[in-house]
Amino acid sequence: MTQNPDSSLTRLFNPRSIAIVGASATPGKIGAMPVSLLRQHGYDGRILPINPRAESIQGLPAAPDLAALGGEADLVILAVPAALAAQALEQARPGQVGGAVVFTSGFSETGAAGVALQAQLCEIARDRGIRLLGPNCLGYMNVRRNIYATFSPAPANGTVAPGGIGMVSQSGAFGAYAYCMARDRGLGLSHWISTGNEADVDVADCIEWLARDTDTRVIMTYMEGCRDGDKLRRALSAAREAGKPVVVTKIGRTQAGAQAAASHTAALAGDDAVYDALFRQYGAVRARTIEEFFNLGYALDTWKQLPQGKRLGIFTISGGVGALMADDAQDAGLSLPEPAADAQARLLERVPFASGRNPVDVTGQVVSEPGLLLATAEDMLADGRFDALAVFLAAAGSSESLWPTFETFAREMHARRPDVPLAISALFPPERRRELERLGTLVFTDPSAAIRTIGAVAGLAAQPDANPDQAIPAAQTAAPLLASYNEVQAMDVLRLAGLPVPDCTLAADADAAARAATRLGGPVVMKVVSPDILHKSDVGGVKLGLSGDDAVRGAHAAILDSVRTHRPDARIDGVLVAPMAKKGVECIAGVHCDPVFGPVVMFGLGGVFVEVLKDVSFRLAPFGRQQALSMIREIKGYALLQGARGTPPCDIEALADALAALSRFAYARRNDFSSVEINPLLALPQGSGALALDAVLIPTA
Amino acid sequence: MTQNPDSSLTRLFNPRSIAIVGASATPGKIGAMPVSLLRQHGYDGRILPINPRAESIQGLPAAPDLAALGGEADLVILAVPAALAAQALEQARPGQVGGAVVFTSGFSETGAAGVALQAQLCEIARDRGIRLLGPNCLGYMNVRRNIYATFSPAPANGTVAPGGIGMVSQSGAFGAYAYCMARDRGLGLSHWISTGNEADVDVADCIEWLARDTDTRVIMTYMEGCRDGDKLRRALSAAREAGKPVVVTKIGRTQAGAQAAASHTAALAGDDAVYDALFRQYGAVRARTIEEFFNLGYALDTWKQLPQGKRLGIFTISGGVGALMADDAQDAGLSLPEPAADAQARLLERVPFASGRNPVDVTGQVVSEPGLLLATAEDMLADGRFDALAVFLAAAGSSESLWPTFETFAREMHARRPDVPLAISALFPPERRRELERLGTLVFTDPSAAIRTIGAVAGLAAQPDANPDQAIPAAQTAAPLLASYNEVQAMDVLRLAGLPVPDCTLAADADAAARAATRLGGPVVMKVVSPDILHKSDVGGVKLGLSGDDAVRGAHAAILDSVRTHRPDARIDGVLVAPMAKKGVECIAGVHCDPVFGPVVMFGLGGVFVEVLKDVSFRLAPFGRQQALSMIREIKGYALLQGARGTPPCDIEALADALAALSRFAYARRNDFSSVEINPLLALPQGSGALALDAVLIPTA
Repeated sequence: MTQNPDSSLTRLFNPRSIAIVGASATPGKIGAMPVSLLRQHGYDGRILPINPRAESIQGLPAAPDLAALGGEADLVILAVPAALAAQALEQARPGQVGGAVVFTSGFSETGAAGVALQAQLCEIARDRGIRLLGPNCLGYMNVRRNIYATFSPAPANGTVAPGGIGMVSQSGAFGAYAYCMARDRGLGLSHWISTGNEADVDVADCIEWLARDTDTRVIMTYMEGCRDGDKLRRALSAAREAGKPVVVTKIGRTQAGAQAAASHTAALAGDDAVYDALFRQYGAVRARTIEEFFNLGYALDTWKQLPQGKRLGIFTISGGVGALMADDAQDAGLSLPEPAADAQARLLERVPFASGRNPVDVTGQVVSEPGLLLATAEDMLADGRFDALAVFLAAAGSSESLWPTFETFAREMHARRPDVPLAISALFPPERRRELERLGTLVFTDPSAAIRTIGAVAGLAAQPDANPDQAIPAAQTAAPLLASYNEVQAMDVLRLAGLPVPDCTLAADADAAARAATRLGGPVVMKVVSPDILHKSDVGGVKLGLSGDDAVRGAHAAILDSVRTHRPDARIDGVLVAPMAKKGVECIAGVHCDPVFGPVVMFGLGGVFVEVLKDVSFRLAPFGRQQALSMIREIKGYALLQGARGTPPCDIEALADALAALSRFAYARRNDFSSVEINPLLALPQGSGALALDAVLIPTA
Repeated sequence: MTQNPDSSLTRLFNPRSIAIVGASATPGKIGAMPVSLLRQHGYDGRILPINPRAESIQGLPAAPDLAALGGEADLVILAVPAALAAQALEQARPGQVGGAVVFTSGFSETGAAGVALQAQLCEIARDRGIRLLGPNCLGYMNVRRNIYATFSPAPANGTVAPGGIGMVSQSGAFGAYAYCMARDRGLGLSHWISTGNEADVDVADCIEWLARDTDTRVIMTYMEGCRDGDKLRRALSAAREAGKPVVVTKIGRTQAGAQAAASHTAALAGDDAVYDALFRQYGAVRARTIEEFFNLGYALDTWKQLPQGKRLGIFTISGGVGALMADDAQDAGLSLPEPAADAQARLLERVPFASGRNPVDVTGQVVSEPGLLLATAEDMLADGRFDALAVFLAAAGSSESLWPTFETFAREMHARRPDVPLAISALFPPERRRELERLGTLVFTDPSAAIRTIGAVAGLAAQPDANPDQAIPAAQTAAPLLASYNEVQAMDVLRLAGLPVPDCTLAADADAAARAATRLGGPVVMKVVSPDILHKSDVGGVKLGLSGDDAVRGAHAAILDSVRTHRPDARIDGVLVAPMAKKGVECIAGVHCDPVFGPVVMFGLGGVFVEVLKDVSFRLAPFGRQQALSMIREIKGYALLQGARGTPPCDIEALADALAALSRFAYARRNDFSSVEINPLLALPQGSGALALDAVLIPTA
């Protein structure tokens, strides 16, 4: 869908001149709003109203159409009915117009006729090198340059301050709501963009552009779906490389939500679990609610440095609320190390009934001894054992007499320990809150929201690369492409791809089976291999624990006899001979092709974990060992791999290497294979590796 | 710990006269605050300052001590150092004082000397019939009567409005914070109570008193632990009977939080999972965060009627946010039925590009056609398929020109459909928000918070009784009390208790075994029964699937031979003969005695579910079938009982009946048995019942 992928969006989002087609003098009209907002807020470029039925609009000379316009119009705002939009744009001279914003609805969201209209509009824009925002969108705002290319009434009720947050929303209603919430919460924006039908410019384009925009430090985005997975990956990668965190809200987390999203948006929704994997993999933080969306944006924008790890210090004047925060910390995956013994001792010298352990409780004593706050916190942080500090000051925040204490505390903490970001939970008056925020302190009314937010951003910087540049072994690209793969052929392909598979042989006759068993040494398992037989045991097609020549030859004959009796019609490829499997934890790994994002690797534990609890994790191929480790740790049954139920801990690194190899194979051969299932993938005890015991490989039809 | 459990707390919490021991004229002093607050806010009873070194305090005549006071003092506030508190109270004449509030710290929270001091204070109060709040507490406020028996600075910065919420907090800091938040959020309180060390009056006493207080409609409580489980159960029961919902925040949900709570409070913390079971069982809503605490209190206080079920209608002007809310609804356990076909059709007639399905999206069209809102919502609710309605109006809430539309909408909805409580999510100016709230509409900025809150309170009224009055079968009390129970004896006890156990016989010799097998008919299982052998299979002590006299006699001999060879020292009670078990899902049920709450019944699925995932649920004994069903449905692996993995659905009602019978037994014999474990408790296919296959019964030592 992308037009002119190489041309810049800068003329669109940072124009020196703006033409408004359908400009109106009637207040409240869709074509009146941008003209009046641009003038009101002092846009410093040229405003060019276009209206064939007026000499001037709101005091500015009006041209009848684009053709009549003397010079360039970096941006054209189309505020005319759908049927007239293409017609208006058609008049642009080559190079005259850099971008267009189309407010009007009545395009692809309304059915076949609208789809055709939208396609026509796109073609006209593409022919003229014009990037298109919309149609059916609320436009955009460039806050620093006072560009209001929007008809949203939101800025009319008060504008947001300029700041470092770039905000992109596919939905206009969500975008407008978010604009008002940003204003009410005092967050500063660089840009606000609504993408609507995304005929050309989509959320990914905007993320990538904001990643390169010097005014933007944090990107907040709302999306409903995506049609170009590679572009979204590139955009998230660009933001990551630029060191700009991305907060994302995507609808359709649940079955009910996905169903509603699918009926709302024409965009291909795709599997939400895959989006979730994408966000984890590229270090984008997913917000489940609007509140969380803003808490995260607020933290990422306010903190000058992010916590480098997950070690939280809690510091309160209430032991009870400290315990509540400890609950939240554990839920949020944060650890609570104890302060050093001497720091604890010093606190207890000062306040005998305090608690020096984490959560530290200095008690209400702080009211009569304000110096306690800073002294205790400094002791606590002295030896670098905390990545962030969460402070609860209860109702004391609203005390004006204590304000100097709190202000000094925040100022000194930032000056002395800039490496330990600070969040305070208390009821401060709004202006006091702003003062603390300017110092770089987060302020939350709800201490739990503080902890959850810290948990979500802690260690973001330390996340593994999404997609490290790992050479794909040449061997696996050499694996043959067949019309179908039996078990042994599938194992051979995976072996070439670098996966650990047992040494198995497809024996054509009893002699071959005996030779294979002799070569393997220990007891073997033998199984019939046939494209027509799914459940081998049911037809007597499996024999276990066979040792010695006679036993192997006997089993070979018995298997063939039994299979021929039960299924005389079945084609038989031969009998598989493999070593008896060792003891381990049964896992499952798989690959399927997502229509938007291509090959996706799945991992889970076997049995009830996959079948009843759906306890699986996903990553987009290809990825390296670190991503594989994080997808293994993500499953709820992870404890089982760590050695629950009296079994020894598993070789998790070998498992990770197997998953990474599978991901490289899946990516390199994404056009050849539509799915892989390895079941079981056996996790052996630590140091003993992993083993793919059975595999089904489906080539692309 | 309870003193005078029968005496009322009314003189304490609703006094006609208040003496302040340690009353002071110096502003900011702990003894000055209550005097000035009571006078400032116009308390209509007598204020009696007590101070031996002053003739008058703040313009009121002062007495030197309680003895010198002519008449009664319903309430005495002790604002003197710990060492003087008991001394002051000692002077009270019998009947003179009804209750005392002790602000001072330095009691049990400080170690052994403080514990002794507190005990002395308690004894003096008990002797004089005085109920004691504190020590080490912030006191209380009776908002309607302007009684400020507190030294919290919170009301000095602005008081809360009188209202229907009774608030009880063990922690003073949490309480003060909650007071300020209630004020800032516009919630009205009847009473605000902080219980501190709980030497006498505890959170449970306050809940029970508020349950009977006519000014209180909703109870909000924060607790750290409880020492008297029966009293808390009685209190929650009283609130339930009075139809007053209870919102509770209890710290220590997680290991980290429980550890912090234990180091903070001297109170016995107890197992959090048991508290959680208690709250579920008695219909108290547990809030995990302060934000949630207030959202719940707000909803329960504002809505005139609670949703009768879990069927939610979502109604928005943004399809995207509608889908986001659908995600939240699924998370919150709410269902989203479709509106009737004719309601959908009528909406599409009015707005062709709207969505008539749930979440309904009337689109931004509502701005130009305000009547859409009410007409569509009425159509949607016409045939009674929704229990609550959640509306999202985006940024339109801040538009003054649309206010009459929204006001009419809310007013008419409440008038026409009072049975469908309404929540609106939008950015309203504060005064507009209050207007809607007065109509009975909930207003949330975050639509997700609206949905979560609805989910938490929906169907509260429809919950099963905690503890229905079910006759305890006489038989089970007749089960013999032995020093120890072998497997067969344990099964006999459970059979008498009404649990389904297989027909098993302890055969003393081969003849008896053969007779038992003949009587049972089908194939049997035989196991050695010995107090010295835990793992029967390891010593050849188990034989399966035996049919016919010879096989049974042979197995009997073989078992005894093998056991005597492996364990010549083992005492042998005999050999158990039982029918071969049918196929079913293996569950586990157990009972343990909680030190605070007595016998607690546990339920879970066997294997990894219990061992790795700790996927279990609890209820306090005794309970009936409905509670048992809800504890079964609560586990994550519930799908397995419903027939996942190709197995038929289980007989869940039989399982519930078994759990209820176990709970009645555990309760009736709570002094005789310290634990029961039934493993496995087999859930058979629907209609085939459940079966306790093995049991360990431990009598109280």
